[in-house]
Amino acid sequence: MARDPKYDILFEPLQVGPKTLPNRFFQVAHCVGAGSDRPGFQAHFRAMKAEGGWGAVTTEYCSIAPESDDTHRVSARLWDDGDVRNLSLMCDMLHDQGALAAVEIWHGGANACGMESRVPARGASQIASPFAFMRACKAMDKQDIREVQQLYVNACKRARDAGFDILTIYYAHTEALLHQFLLPFFNRRTDEYGGSFENRVRFGREVLELVREAVGDDCAIGVRFGVDTLDLPVGLGDRGIRQDGEGLQFIEYMDHLVDMWDINVGNAVEWGEDAAPSRTHAENHERPNVYKVKQHTSKPVLNVGRFTSPDTMVEVIRSGQADIIGAARPSIADPFLPRKIEEGRLDDIRECIGCNVCISRWEIGGPPLVCTQNATSAEEFRRGWHPEKFTQAANADNDVLVVGAGPAGMECAIVLAKRGLRRVHLVDAAEDIGGHMRWVPKLPGLGEWGRVVNYRRIQLDKLKNVEVITGTRLDAQGALDYGAEIVVVATGSRWATDGLQGITNEPIPGADASLPHVATPDQLMDEGKAVGKRVVVYDCETYFTGVGMAEKLVREGHDVTYVTPFDAIAPYTVYTLEFPRLNRTLRRLGVKIVTGHVLTNVAPGNATIAEAWLEEESEIECDTVVLVTQRVSDDALYRELSADPEALAGTGIAGLYQIGDCVLPSLIAEAVFSGHRLAREIDSPNPAVALPYIRERRLLNATEEDYQLQSPAIEMAL
Amino acid sequence: MARDPKYDILFEPLQVGPKTLPNRFFQVAHCVGAGSDRPGFQAHFRAMKAEGGWGAVTTEYCSIAPESDDTHRVSARLWDDGDVRNLSLMCDMLHDQGALAAVEIWHGGANACGMESRVPARGASQIASPFAFMRACKAMDKQDIREVQQLYVNACKRARDAGFDILTIYYAHTEALLHQFLLPFFNRRTDEYGGSFENRVRFGREVLELVREAVGDDCAIGVRFGVDTLDLPVGLGDRGIRQDGEGLQFIEYMDHLVDMWDINVGNAVEWGEDAAPSRTHAENHERPNVYKVKQHTSKPVLNVGRFTSPDTMVEVIRSGQADIIGAARPSIADPFLPRKIEEGRLDDIRECIGCNVCISRWEIGGPPLVCTQNATSAEEFRRGWHPEKFTQAANADNDVLVVGAGPAGMECAIVLAKRGLRRVHLVDAAEDIGGHMRWVPKLPGLGEWGRVVNYRRIQLDKLKNVEVITGTRLDAQGALDYGAEIVVVATGSRWATDGLQGITNEPIPGADASLPHVATPDQLMDEGKAVGKRVVVYDCETYFTGVGMAEKLVREGHDVTYVTPFDAIAPYTVYTLEFPRLNRTLRRLGVKIVTGHVLTNVAPGNATIAEAWLEEESEIECDTVVLVTQRVSDDALYRELSADPEALAGTGIAGLYQIGDCVLPSLIAEAVFSGHRLAREIDSPNPAVALPYIRERRLLNATEEDYQLQSPAIEMAL
Repeated sequence: MARDPKYDILFEPLQVGPKTLPNRFFQVAHCVGAGSDRPGFQAHFRAMKAEGGWGAVTTEYCSIAPESDDTHRVSARLWDDGDVRNLSLMCDMLHDQGALAAVEIWHGGANACGMESRVPARGASQIASPFAFMRACKAMDKQDIREVQQLYVNACKRARDAGFDILTIYYAHTEALLHQFLLPFFNRRTDEYGGSFENRVRFGREVLELVREAVGDDCAIGVRFGVDTLDLPVGLGDRGIRQDGEGLQFIEYMDHLVDMWDINVGNAVEWGEDAAPSRTHAENHERPNVYKVKQHTSKPVLNVGRFTSPDTMVEVIRSGQADIIGAARPSIADPFLPRKIEEGRLDDIRECIGCNVCISRWEIGGPPLVCTQNATSAEEFRRGWHPEKFTQAANADNDVLVVGAGPAGMECAIVLAKRGLRRVHLVDAAEDIGGHMRWVPKLPGLGEWGRVVNYRRIQLDKLKNVEVITGTRLDAQGALDYGAEIVVVATGSRWATDGLQGITNEPIPGADASLPHVATPDQLMDEGKAVGKRVVVYDCETYFTGVGMAEKLVREGHDVTYVTPFDAIAPYTVYTLEFPRLNRTLRRLGVKIVTGHVLTNVAPGNATIAEAWLEEESEIECDTVVLVTQRVSDDALYRELSADPEALAGTGIAGLYQIGDCVLPSLIAEAVFSGHRLAREIDSPNPAVALPYIRERRLLNATEEDYQLQSPAIEMAL
Repeated sequence: MARDPKYDILFEPLQVGPKTLPNRFFQVAHCVGAGSDRPGFQAHFRAMKAEGGWGAVTTEYCSIAPESDDTHRVSARLWDDGDVRNLSLMCDMLHDQGALAAVEIWHGGANACGMESRVPARGASQIASPFAFMRACKAMDKQDIREVQQLYVNACKRARDAGFDILTIYYAHTEALLHQFLLPFFNRRTDEYGGSFENRVRFGREVLELVREAVGDDCAIGVRFGVDTLDLPVGLGDRGIRQDGEGLQFIEYMDHLVDMWDINVGNAVEWGEDAAPSRTHAENHERPNVYKVKQHTSKPVLNVGRFTSPDTMVEVIRSGQADIIGAARPSIADPFLPRKIEEGRLDDIRECIGCNVCISRWEIGGPPLVCTQNATSAEEFRRGWHPEKFTQAANADNDVLVVGAGPAGMECAIVLAKRGLRRVHLVDAAEDIGGHMRWVPKLPGLGEWGRVVNYRRIQLDKLKNVEVITGTRLDAQGALDYGAEIVVVATGSRWATDGLQGITNEPIPGADASLPHVATPDQLMDEGKAVGKRVVVYDCETYFTGVGMAEKLVREGHDVTYVTPFDAIAPYTVYTLEFPRLNRTLRRLGVKIVTGHVLTNVAPGNATIAEAWLEEESEIECDTVVLVTQRVSDDALYRELSADPEALAGTGIAGLYQIGDCVLPSLIAEAVFSGHRLAREIDSPNPAVALPYIRERRLLNATEEDYQLQSPAIEMAL
């Protein structure tokens, strides 16, 4: 199919300084775990987006010098010639696809930890960082100012030498030194670099002038500018910046030095107001705080806002809000989003669900990104996976039975079908596909998470060699008799009904979900078990289920006490940026939050809890205790089938595998990955064991060939 | 000097299986941030200890396969031939020094996160990990058991091929799969691998049998065994293991399969009971829980316990407690500890202070280790630093004035003197050297931290070209007139007297330490300011000062309310393993702990605090508010001296530098590093800027020469 003409505007080229952006799709800077030290990962990850139609693709934040060292988190770096060499591969591969290569030029000022380089970071004023433990920055003197400005220039020259077309100067999120100079929240100086607007902008203006002079003829100079740090409690109040205050003033003041404005909002402490979870923020949520910018500049303007709808994108441009559609997360979930619009395949777009697990890995520091929707994300290089290309399986002349249509089973069936397996039978006991994702999206705020099922439902419908059978519970005999040569068990997990968890590593006395006053999330969401007025939610999960139950129940009128052994609610949501709003929401709704306590006993009418350190016990009167302790794999079918390998072989079943939560309960992203991985490797010597992947590390006395030898199964594209 | 004969026993060789340990000093496995991916770092770091006299040196925990992936934390790996190649350098360099190379063979079972490999980890039973977010392990079936046992064998063969002499099978800390199989706390199996002692030990016994068969002729097989997981609340109670229970039974049962017992205690949840901070545990603190082991085995026994005293070491051996002195932290603080004993230079031993910042970096995940006492630690390869060797400075014919004798100034003066600077003048305004380390060791439990000063005092006394002048406050004119060609400002920092901190980034209304009802730690500890009966300690530091003030004051009889904006007390102490005991101690002493609140106002008689999320204010009646908000660099002297570079040059001062907390307040380790770094590079082209260090990363199309080129200033020893 051809693209709908109403989307033509998204494909119009645009001049950005000395460069031509081929269309309006711009992958803004986002982290992935590659940096400059994993050049294959970096290049192949970014180039996949170019292949998918993104007109420009940016690195993650890229440090200009050792003093801006964010270890343990992974940034790119332009510190030396080695970094130039490594990042040039990304530029070359983007250029091969006709895309522009962009780099986000970053100095972290007050927030750089220096845990690798041990070099003191310099900043506007010396204030302790809320991010870098036991660290502040050095308040710059005049010599420092000149030196740091020169660091910007040096890094920008290196960026040009690496082949970057667009240098996006980072001036946002309060994470960038330049933003910190601008904001009274950070800048307490009394010299000509502090105080008045002109003074606070001086440092950045000088940087832009120097950079433009050094590389402005060769590269487009973008500025990623945080035009609004929002209002309290999630913002910096009058010590930050507001669109209607100095935000637009800044745009006008700096416009002559800038080729492109990459606009966003928010601050680093509550960064989730920009990289906003779908739990709290809709598509194009930044519009109210950014829409005036374009009226104050003659340069192209880029906006972000988790754009996945081409109609919204068109509206953004037509309404005069912006010229360029910026995206990070939507480009992770679907690197081929632009191409699918171009080809009129809108229903094939794998929409970002806004869960922010991608971000969580960067926040943890170190691991590669994972994506709930796109299992191939960050696997392009090391496993050689392409999100849209699937080779015919060597054993395609087999039928496959996939038992369980949760995230792992759905994904596995789709990839097996795309790999040409003769017939893929996806069977589930429930009346609909989705597994626990049938009910998770019904938790407050998680509606968009339903896209995990919706996208796969459409794909399953389209694939001629998949048959979806619901309402059919297969036992071992049923699976054996089914007639498929390959059997994949994807039966998921269930919440423990006895209070088992990883704190005491044993069940909780009295916690028996067969009793009327005890319930699990499965029982509440899937089976409609009744809940009394006064509820205790005991949460050991660290993520969304416990807080989801609490919010749902309090909204339904229950009196909810939320108890957790951790020091704070749902600590994993710190990494997904949902933590601040979740805290405020639960508290505003009247949930009583009790942290640092373990549940020691459940009885009709009350729960006994013990303070974690002194173990002093107290009682909470309640009608129902909801056990969000841990999930337990539902692996009975696999165990029965695998118990007698010889008998299995006698039935004509050549392969029996297990994927997803029935192996071990983990993130949805890991369940999807598990199903995808098995299908990608269904014709490997032993599909049960993942093939090795390329580990990009320093190898002693290595040749390029050696790197390939580390992963014999993968054809390396370097 | 020769060694005292009473220490001869420490230098007696010992047969360990097929290998001969040259003496009794054994660096047990400890993390450093090198792993298998930074082979130069790994090899040079470990080889330095061999040069310093350690008879055997071990890697950190070394993963046997991708399913045991601890990313984001850094472990070594023996996954493939590349790892063999990289780790072989460590073995070669140890052998060159006459030491044995050991590797700790690790599978993490329930605790492996899989955030890089994404391979499901297998364990005894499926229990949610308290470490790995949103992760459990797969409960092994019979096939899994055979496969995982083979993973052990494969890794041990690779270890042998890499050149390791001793394979230490990790069976401790509840961090190792084998330990988990043994303990009912983790093992809930009902088959022949669970239940009775023989069943729970079966998995490990089979592993040892297989490993011994595969490599037992070539390598010594050690077992690092956690013989006592201690009693509640810091242990696992009757679901763990106790020395007097199954601990000794295990020793006897497995003794025929083991060449050496590396014994320790504790569990992973409260690992600080083994890697114990000096705050709570003395040297040889494990003795009560391990001393019986030797009576139940015919094999050599190793103990650990932060041994730094050679007399204690001798007593450990003579008393029949153990045969081998194991150490991790003492070998970091002083890689030359054995050699100094041998050479009769006991007063040159740089004793570990037991602060655990080394461990904190591993706990954070990613960064290289730092050591408070030894600034060269983890810098052996990348910066080419040797802890005991110092080259004559090219500009040695200069006098240096170091202003400020805190950690940075002391260290800088010592290294400058060792580099042969003509005369080093270390001048401090206080009556004694140490800076804030004069009073920090007076905080409860921090007595051993005084070694930071004690070690340096001895060194300063010995160095003929250092003059220490106390009680002398130099102003700018005084420094100019001093007559030294090089001036180093190390004037440290002071606690903010106005409540400035990195939460609101501004002072706190009413918080004025010039008033009688407000105090800073400096005022309390250094100036003797009086404190009222009811005290509020407001702690934004994240580390030891706020909790230290609270504990000191409550022990002195004050009513203490501890308020922090964080979700828990002193979050950095999670990484130093001090967190659990600190929590219990403060609570038991009656400190009222208020987390998640910010201090919004201070007035005579009360403090106003606001809940962090809803900002609801409340008041606390109190007589004194102690402001532990942030430190502020005392850089007035440097600023005055540097204000007019030309005038400075005219005085004959060729170099003016700034080190330590007066640049930016940070960890003591970073202050020491800062002083050391400047002195190491005092004759570089620009000593103010750190020379580049070797970054061990994958470089595209690289030769070994290229790696050297990345750090032109450093002679690379590969």
